[in-house]
Amino acid sequence: MEWEAIKNRLDALLANGKHSEIRGAMMMLNVVDIAQYMETLERDKLLHVFRILPKDISSDVFTYMEPEQKQLLIESIGDQEICALIDDMFLDDAVDFLEELPASVVKRVLQSAPVEKRNLINQFLRYPEYSAGSIMTIEYLEFHEGDTVRDAMNIIKKVGLDKETIYTLYIIDKERRLLGTLALRRMILADEDAVLSDMMTTNPISVYTTDDQEKVADTVRRYDVMALPVVDKENRLVGIITADDVMDVIEEENTEDFEKMAGLMPSEEEYLKTSPFRLALNRIPWLLIMAAVALFTGMIIKSFEDVLATSIVLTSCIPMLMNTGGNCGSQASTLIIRGIALGEIEFRDLFRALWKEFRVGAMVGAVLAVFTFLLVTFIYGAAPAEAFVVALALYATVLIAKALGCTLPLLARKVGFDPALMASPLITTLVDATSLTIYFIIATAILKIAL
Amino acid sequence: MEWEAIKNRLDALLANGKHSEIRGAMMMLNVVDIAQYMETLERDKLLHVFRILPKDISSDVFTYMEPEQKQLLIESIGDQEICALIDDMFLDDAVDFLEELPASVVKRVLQSAPVEKRNLINQFLRYPEYSAGSIMTIEYLEFHEGDTVRDAMNIIKKVGLDKETIYTLYIIDKERRLLGTLALRRMILADEDAVLSDMMTTNPISVYTTDDQEKVADTVRRYDVMALPVVDKENRLVGIITADDVMDVIEEENTEDFEKMAGLMPSEEEYLKTSPFRLALNRIPWLLIMAAVALFTGMIIKSFEDVLATSIVLTSCIPMLMNTGGNCGSQASTLIIRGIALGEIEFRDLFRALWKEFRVGAMVGAVLAVFTFLLVTFIYGAAPAEAFVVALALYATVLIAKALGCTLPLLARKVGFDPALMASPLITTLVDATSLTIYFIIATAILKIAL
Repeated sequence: MEWEAIKNRLDALLANGKHSEIRGAMMMLNVVDIAQYMETLERDKLLHVFRILPKDISSDVFTYMEPEQKQLLIESIGDQEICALIDDMFLDDAVDFLEELPASVVKRVLQSAPVEKRNLINQFLRYPEYSAGSIMTIEYLEFHEGDTVRDAMNIIKKVGLDKETIYTLYIIDKERRLLGTLALRRMILADEDAVLSDMMTTNPISVYTTDDQEKVADTVRRYDVMALPVVDKENRLVGIITADDVMDVIEEENTEDFEKMAGLMPSEEEYLKTSPFRLALNRIPWLLIMAAVALFTGMIIKSFEDVLATSIVLTSCIPMLMNTGGNCGSQASTLIIRGIALGEIEFRDLFRALWKEFRVGAMVGAVLAVFTFLLVTFIYGAAPAEAFVVALALYATVLIAKALGCTLPLLARKVGFDPALMASPLITTLVDATSLTIYFIIATAILKIAL
Repeated sequence: MEWEAIKNRLDALLANGKHSEIRGAMMMLNVVDIAQYMETLERDKLLHVFRILPKDISSDVFTYMEPEQKQLLIESIGDQEICALIDDMFLDDAVDFLEELPASVVKRVLQSAPVEKRNLINQFLRYPEYSAGSIMTIEYLEFHEGDTVRDAMNIIKKVGLDKETIYTLYIIDKERRLLGTLALRRMILADEDAVLSDMMTTNPISVYTTDDQEKVADTVRRYDVMALPVVDKENRLVGIITADDVMDVIEEENTEDFEKMAGLMPSEEEYLKTSPFRLALNRIPWLLIMAAVALFTGMIIKSFEDVLATSIVLTSCIPMLMNTGGNCGSQASTLIIRGIALGEIEFRDLFRALWKEFRVGAMVGAVLAVFTFLLVTFIYGAAPAEAFVVALALYATVLIAKALGCTLPLLARKVGFDPALMASPLITTLVDATSLTIYFIIATAILKIAL
């Protein structure tokens, strides 16, 4: 059923106020859809619907609700309800939720939480933001070296359903160091007396609590794993990062790259929920830098006043030259930045990439130069010498733009900056300055003779 | 152990030629690392190492190898070895592999494949590219309405390890229509005589074979599911898409957006493996279109020759105006395009977004206008009237750029185009034309009075 249809039926049910029917309807829906429906409700109705929800899904629905709605709800319900809610949530979801709340509300929630959970949450809130520790969960199953399949099944039967991922079993030694992993599917096919550590995969891929989430995303991409164990400095198992969180991390990293590549300060918030003031603040720094650089580029124009005065065609072609240079540069830099992000291109590939871009630039430049020569001649009615200057400058611009677009992200990577910063806006600005200089030098040289 | 260290040790082992040691070393490594090591080898050594590999991991290693290496290997080994390899591969991996090969090699591989597998592969190769059908796998477990936990366990024990995902059980009716899903963890905790369909989740989230992989990515993002059942038009279960493939789809969709947003034709291949000619072809179409539009923008300059002649400051500020307009536009369009991709922004949000961008533009424009006024006055030594013209035109440019950057992607979405096409290059070109027109109109009006 489509979302609009779901909404209309629930609205109708809610208007007529039959609790048991609403409850029944909710039981047929996915928790994500219910959470989205909650978004459309006013405070009173929100509370009403939330209390109608079957207890076993209310914490799931809560997890998928929007931060504002969560806060509204927390402010409306009693401490005991909060306590039950937090207790039912997976630890990583509870921590995520608390990180979004104002400090005063966090305090109230933590006071209501069960003691054991509260201590764990406090520990998690201390991990650096965006670190593996801050996104991991402790809902995993650990076993010891000598444990048999029978032991494991008994434990799983006791605690299994509380765990976010019981499909990978983690085997640790007495010092809690991670020895290996065992897929649940291998275990359930094994003999009851088989020892887990005899069947496990040793040398499991893992990350440290202090690793950045970017490292987490890279590791998952490289090894195609669906859950990652997280260890502390002494290699002791302290948590796991589950597949859904890994997917979120990858999307966050991608969004960050998109933002940086457009000259924006990265932001965690959804666009529609960010205040205009905040949005403006994220945009102004790069705009100011770029505007200042572009004004210095303008100085180049000023110093070539004489040659510009000889022909309005030269001035008219400035937008085309700047525009094409910027586009060529960002085409190259986008491919290189994305290649670096996906682990396909390294700094050691610099010369290979440069040689490739040189050949691409030679071909692209030739096509554009011929095209421009014809257009400038026939549409602008330019003299052949003028059209030749424009075409030649364009050819040089394309070559320079491709070279800068491929070199700068790799250099940034080498010196430890984020390659994504070397994208469109910066490349465009740099290409503008160099291409205009070349343009005017060529123009001075050729037009002096020709005109 | 770091990749470089792994490579050095394997190189040393390979040089000394002790098969059993190499074999032993391989058994300690992750298949992804082995596949990467294979990439560094020449044809002869490649074949040698591949044949040394323990049989149970060779098809996994093969799956992770680069297309060129796979082809090299296929050309070097006998039909019987190909047959064994294909038989050991998961169906979706085999199909992916065949899609990358030249037709002649595909023919040879298919002839060597076991009959049953060949028929399945042929069926898969017929699904449209990028459709759910083309990326799904048939390695899943299906059960019928009346099956009990005991029945299921018997089947799993017989076929379990061959399946890519046995963590979700799919329950179908006699017509093979999908009735529901059951998590393996729920099943193993249940009584042996319990009936699966009594415990299953009904109304499972699914996609159609003909759905585009973008729909697959959207569905996974929305519902946070890790494996998606795929049904045909009659709702019959025909396959599943597993978490690792979903992750690949999301990355592919992101890469496609990055490419489109930089004015590139999307490409599946890795940058370093794409020929310069192919790269040039992917780049030329948009560059030609943009260059033509920019030349028409140049006509605007030409038609305002008179006012430009009054002051070289006006010409010098063209790069800054164009550059800032382009950056402002791409900042807004990037946020909107990303918001649409992540399902956070819809067409119905157009006016909300436009009002937000208006306020952002008002703030950003004010800061930039003041900054530019000062810079142009003190560095260029411009007259107050000139600096005022530049600042005012910049303010208007920022507002227009923000409005276009937010409107165009949403309009594209509405009429069924990809919003990513409305990114930086196109926005920049359009903003250039409008902002230069405004610039010259303001200049004509004010400077006529002032100078």
